[in-house]
Amino acid sequence: MRKVAVVGTGMVKFGTFEDRGIRKMAEEVLFQAIKDAGAHPSQIQAAYCGTNGFSSDTPEMQGPISFVQAGITGVPILQLKNGCASGSNAFREAWIAIQSGLYDVVVALGIEKLSAVTLEMIKLAASMGGGDGELEGSMGFFPPGIFAMFARHYIDDLGVTREQLAKVSVKNHFHGTLNPNAHFQKNVTVEQVLASRPVTSPLNLLDCCPISDGAAAAVLVSEDVLKKFSGRPVWVKGAAQTSGTYPEEGDIGETDTTRRAAAEAYEMAGLGPKDIDLAEVHDCFTPAELMHYRDLGFCKDIPEAAYWLEQGYTQLGGRLPVNTSGGLLAKGHPLGATGVAQICEIVEQLRGEAGARQVEGAITGITHNGGGFRQGDVGSVCVHILQT
Amino acid sequence: MRKVAVVGTGMVKFGTFEDRGIRKMAEEVLFQAIKDAGAHPSQIQAAYCGTNGFSSDTPEMQGPISFVQAGITGVPILQLKNGCASGSNAFREAWIAIQSGLYDVVVALGIEKLSAVTLEMIKLAASMGGGDGELEGSMGFFPPGIFAMFARHYIDDLGVTREQLAKVSVKNHFHGTLNPNAHFQKNVTVEQVLASRPVTSPLNLLDCCPISDGAAAAVLVSEDVLKKFSGRPVWVKGAAQTSGTYPEEGDIGETDTTRRAAAEAYEMAGLGPKDIDLAEVHDCFTPAELMHYRDLGFCKDIPEAAYWLEQGYTQLGGRLPVNTSGGLLAKGHPLGATGVAQICEIVEQLRGEAGARQVEGAITGITHNGGGFRQGDVGSVCVHILQT
Repeated sequence: MRKVAVVGTGMVKFGTFEDRGIRKMAEEVLFQAIKDAGAHPSQIQAAYCGTNGFSSDTPEMQGPISFVQAGITGVPILQLKNGCASGSNAFREAWIAIQSGLYDVVVALGIEKLSAVTLEMIKLAASMGGGDGELEGSMGFFPPGIFAMFARHYIDDLGVTREQLAKVSVKNHFHGTLNPNAHFQKNVTVEQVLASRPVTSPLNLLDCCPISDGAAAAVLVSEDVLKKFSGRPVWVKGAAQTSGTYPEEGDIGETDTTRRAAAEAYEMAGLGPKDIDLAEVHDCFTPAELMHYRDLGFCKDIPEAAYWLEQGYTQLGGRLPVNTSGGLLAKGHPLGATGVAQICEIVEQLRGEAGARQVEGAITGITHNGGGFRQGDVGSVCVHILQT
Repeated sequence: MRKVAVVGTGMVKFGTFEDRGIRKMAEEVLFQAIKDAGAHPSQIQAAYCGTNGFSSDTPEMQGPISFVQAGITGVPILQLKNGCASGSNAFREAWIAIQSGLYDVVVALGIEKLSAVTLEMIKLAASMGGGDGELEGSMGFFPPGIFAMFARHYIDDLGVTREQLAKVSVKNHFHGTLNPNAHFQKNVTVEQVLASRPVTSPLNLLDCCPISDGAAAAVLVSEDVLKKFSGRPVWVKGAAQTSGTYPEEGDIGETDTTRRAAAEAYEMAGLGPKDIDLAEVHDCFTPAELMHYRDLGFCKDIPEAAYWLEQGYTQLGGRLPVNTSGGLLAKGHPLGATGVAQICEIVEQLRGEAGARQVEGAITGITHNGGGFRQGDVGSVCVHILQT
């Protein structure tokens, strides 16, 4: 296994921008990441873009065109689509390309302009997150419905309270107030979450991540060429991807897609959950964050996950801060951009450059991003472990 | 560099099938390829699908869902989109995944149901081949327009005759009559090509590849695990991808995207154009095939390419048969499936299993597939060299 480091990152503030095309955002984050790496576009040897193609301008090939606009030409350029996990997939493929020995300097880009999605597009795409409209649509299996089912299970069967779910949103919105790149930079209270508009019972609007536009990029290099770049390296210690289907029997909350990805990443890194100083996890809906505490091995089950949350363990200042960026709930969730933005947050933290939301002394971080074709158990999951 | 072999392939007859969904076709070719390899779905360690998502049923995530339906679950699953080159990109990423040392058994799938494309979808996608609708659409830069420009240049400036262009179609339709999987299995004459409906002067309908549905798959394995599989191996000796932008100056026919990809693949394989026994090239329009004779190094320029064609060098029985499958012109061009289907043809030929269209004694073949975001110079090009 070759040693690979992230030496540069870039991202734009997430939000909804009527006057800002996706290519402009892509170009901006690519320039940022390349500058941060102390690199030149001509040094990039391969480029991977994760996106679902949602855009107001020429939706089809935004990624490749963005690379070319940023001066990355002549090299292998690829666009990947894996629903909400497209960004972390692009990052992992960039890492694999370096592992192959063919390339030493590869860029990963994640982009999405979700605010450009029209009803016509949704209808055409069958289901927005990339699901199976034929089967899932007819069963009400769209993302909010699926996570409402998890929430109901946690409340009815596992003793989690409605207020505890709300507290995930409260925590992540608080983190968002400290992140200038977050879509929302405003505190919310438990009362506000509970009083927000119902979406799918028991989940309300503030239990759900928003519709966001955004872009993020990261430059990865092999150890062999590291000296050529001035950007402070953060090492990729583990990079795993798994997929899964609906659980065929047993507990609706019991799926092992994330657990398998985490186990693989931990093994690759020679590390365990106890070594993790901070995490960015896929909190698309409030119950998802509790699920991921469990599946990433931070605690043993959902009740303990709720206890961790209550005790402030996962809040900034706690023993294992989760989603210091604001997470999907407050930083926003421009599908293809999300996975790469998680990497940006961990890199910023491990470099000690996270300002007001800095996790003191952090040396190891983990990212978890899921999505794709079977939302029920988060069909495709990527877990990355980074270390200074 | 690890030694990698194709041990199994599968494809369906290309055509337009109102009653045949893309998943059914995908499942069929995956079963074929896995059976041909002497493998079991549970042995597949990673899976790559190339598609542009054109489909009549749930367009978004056909690739991943198809893998799951074929019993390929739990492993990394990715969907790539790179216009007309999506299939060869999926094949090359599968090869890279094995090069990385992470995996030993990877499947590449290419699928597309172009007959399902509606005007609404084209409008939404801005330009069907995945181009830049904003810039290219306003300039008339859609694929037939671009290749008509090449044709005009070849005729007006380089002494190629209109009849010679037509002969590309005649040759490839003849090859198609020998391939049970070809979309068209009927000879055409020069007169018929010249009398067919004008598309973009000087190109007529029979100078253009058709709208096709189709699927193709290939199982790749590392040398380390080869003994586990009974499928007769064909080695991947070279695998290269490049990208390019419009030529900024000079001759409209002079682009170097294919040449750079070919040079890289030849170097990797330790082989040159003189070692090639047969080729599958991206003959989306008749002038394209002549261009590729030149850019793959078979001959020095366009007039010589026309001479090669006239002499029958590239016809079955000639010194370097090109597009024995029928090529895009007669076998059909279901975008994402095309690149993988080219691999299927070369594997079948190198195994000596191509029946009536067998190239006697063939030991080395090359595939060339282009597409993506800048059709003018075939933005993204993959070249693969295979050998028994």
